[in-house]
Amino acid sequence: MNKIDGGVTAAKGFQAAGIYAGIKKKRKDMALVYSTVPANAAGTFTTNVVKAAPVKWDIKITKESKFVQAVVLNSGVANACTGEIGEQNNLRMAQAVGKALDIPAEAVYTASTGVIGKQLPIEVIEEGAKALSSELCDSIEAGSLAAEAIMTTDTYSKESAVHFIVGGKEITVGGMAKGSGMIHPNMATMLGVVTTDLAISKELLQEALSENVKHTFNMISVDRDTSTNDSLLLLANGLAGNKEITEKNDDYENFCEALSIVTTDLAKKMAADGEGATKLFEVQVVGANTEEEAIILSKSIITSNLVKTAVYGSDANWGRILCAMGYSGVSFDPDVVDLSIESAEGKLKLVEQGMATDYSEEFATKILSAKEVKAIADMKQGTASATAWGCDLTYDYVKINADYRS
Amino acid sequence: MNKIDGGVTAAKGFQAAGIYAGIKKKRKDMALVYSTVPANAAGTFTTNVVKAAPVKWDIKITKESKFVQAVVLNSGVANACTGEIGEQNNLRMAQAVGKALDIPAEAVYTASTGVIGKQLPIEVIEEGAKALSSELCDSIEAGSLAAEAIMTTDTYSKESAVHFIVGGKEITVGGMAKGSGMIHPNMATMLGVVTTDLAISKELLQEALSENVKHTFNMISVDRDTSTNDSLLLLANGLAGNKEITEKNDDYENFCEALSIVTTDLAKKMAADGEGATKLFEVQVVGANTEEEAIILSKSIITSNLVKTAVYGSDANWGRILCAMGYSGVSFDPDVVDLSIESAEGKLKLVEQGMATDYSEEFATKILSAKEVKAIADMKQGTASATAWGCDLTYDYVKINADYRS
Repeated sequence: MNKIDGGVTAAKGFQAAGIYAGIKKKRKDMALVYSTVPANAAGTFTTNVVKAAPVKWDIKITKESKFVQAVVLNSGVANACTGEIGEQNNLRMAQAVGKALDIPAEAVYTASTGVIGKQLPIEVIEEGAKALSSELCDSIEAGSLAAEAIMTTDTYSKESAVHFIVGGKEITVGGMAKGSGMIHPNMATMLGVVTTDLAISKELLQEALSENVKHTFNMISVDRDTSTNDSLLLLANGLAGNKEITEKNDDYENFCEALSIVTTDLAKKMAADGEGATKLFEVQVVGANTEEEAIILSKSIITSNLVKTAVYGSDANWGRILCAMGYSGVSFDPDVVDLSIESAEGKLKLVEQGMATDYSEEFATKILSAKEVKAIADMKQGTASATAWGCDLTYDYVKINADYRS
Repeated sequence: MNKIDGGVTAAKGFQAAGIYAGIKKKRKDMALVYSTVPANAAGTFTTNVVKAAPVKWDIKITKESKFVQAVVLNSGVANACTGEIGEQNNLRMAQAVGKALDIPAEAVYTASTGVIGKQLPIEVIEEGAKALSSELCDSIEAGSLAAEAIMTTDTYSKESAVHFIVGGKEITVGGMAKGSGMIHPNMATMLGVVTTDLAISKELLQEALSENVKHTFNMISVDRDTSTNDSLLLLANGLAGNKEITEKNDDYENFCEALSIVTTDLAKKMAADGEGATKLFEVQVVGANTEEEAIILSKSIITSNLVKTAVYGSDANWGRILCAMGYSGVSFDPDVVDLSIESAEGKLKLVEQGMATDYSEEFATKILSAKEVKAIADMKQGTASATAWGCDLTYDYVKINADYRS
């Protein structure tokens, strides 16, 4: 299992492109990912009742299409809350790519991100689809251009890839994703595309993805706002030449591990680049009764505005962490809980059996001043654990979101 | 039903005091409310699993004591996560007041607010209790001093009072409360004390209060953080001379209405004075299937960081409102929803049947620039409705909470 450079073009037979089509004012705004052969596809999508037009389309494609061969994505306009015109525009977006690549529209996933409530500039998109298909390339750079073109308020693009072996064949899993506001995924995150040259049945591909997101994308939060457009799409084209995986054997487990490395990496990058964030904040809850309770507890801490502002201020205000667990809905005995913080600067136990230890505030502040900080809560109830990732809440989060549309 | 000046000392037979005892650096930090005769008492308290020592004490008093005659409150230290020493200190606080006033400690409610995890400076508190009891007075000013002494990050003190008539007797209900961070009450809010000279049975008093908070304190949120110390305490001493209310007749309904005026007023003041807030933000959800769903929908909007920052920026980013309803957990058809905004500047429909109307962004911004702004969502499902109150999310919220302890 080796981490390598690259993203959606790392696996065999995948090409990509990213261009400026004219949706945004200046920056790149359209991306295309293409498999030279038909691929099995899986997807997980937002649980928000308000679903964007591309999400509705992709859910249908995932269910009904035998194969998928392309993913077209735009940034700038989310195509959410756009009614029937929005659905027609989305179809036209898929058709334009289908026509340019000579594949059925039903083999094209779509994804949009940006402002809610505005219609897509569909002629611009149709021209963009043509331009994208003529620029497709299997280089690492082409993957990076695609990753760049799906950014909105992200400050850097997010890619990740790994190599591993199945039956003597080298397999690659690579992906890209974007944040960085309205991030509190529930089934998937804002936009993510992962590709692999593994041969695997469609059913197992979906199962691997659905299981995976529970521990990766669904464990991050920037602002507790679950978006209307969350989509994570996974394409497997089989070009690595392994014998197709059709049962949950060691090869399947290997793939799940590789997928987890890529998606965890992308998820953490997304949390660290949360709108306005200066720090990646990781929360581990251990010793919980059940995994579900550990997840609820860790997400309650990671999403508390008061905890997030304390992390921003490098203030070891542990009372807020205990408070956030207290209102999470999980029952526990606060008088036995231990709480520690950790970073590259060191590790420190702040709370033992529910009460403050005689810790040094100075050292605590030093630990919390690092770029990546961790809090560990031991519930002393059982053996279940969970890890969640978030970021601090800063002036810049307010600034970005008080005038996002202007 | 007449609104009048005053707070906890407005009703007959109630005295109060507020002093600087030495818990905080400079500002007033201890308050006392006293009834010259034994009073029936009711309380609602935080649902946080982590409960402060005074909350545990008050729950016991509410259940076991025949009457209550005083409420002692301190600001600066919350006496939460303080273990057995914290409970002993809380008892000493009640005993000091009991001794000074010559009443049983079990007739004294306690309340603390401030930093979590620090022990009370109990000698300072005991001296403070003595000083408070010698300064008790039934003037409106004395009530105001008490309201001032319970403030933490509040920028102004919160009081409210009304007059009404029961059986020819003039009855008064008056109260005080404080915010303004860690405010997402669930059963009651941070700290609130309401007094009345009405004669009413203990059972009905509790029932009136429990029903009341569902529509008042439980409908506000500053930061979605439910505190460890939330307590709303209600004392009724019967000195108005009415025949004791022992059944749910018209007099009871009258009292509920008076109580609602006082608590809604206090709750709205608390929301408007949320940490860093520049605006009171009210959300009305109408046309919902059930009241419970209307409550969930309105609170989901009022607590969304993205909606709150948009309100701060006077940006009619209605997609975020629809998005927040969409992830609330309530099922509805987004394609039929209407959305309007309203303030002293005017009223404007932004969304009709799930899509943007052709509204003027300029006028929308003007409406949202007022000090009190309202959003109204019509779900077109049924006839149930709910109103929630919150505030905008600003730079100052981050500033206040990034260095609250220092």
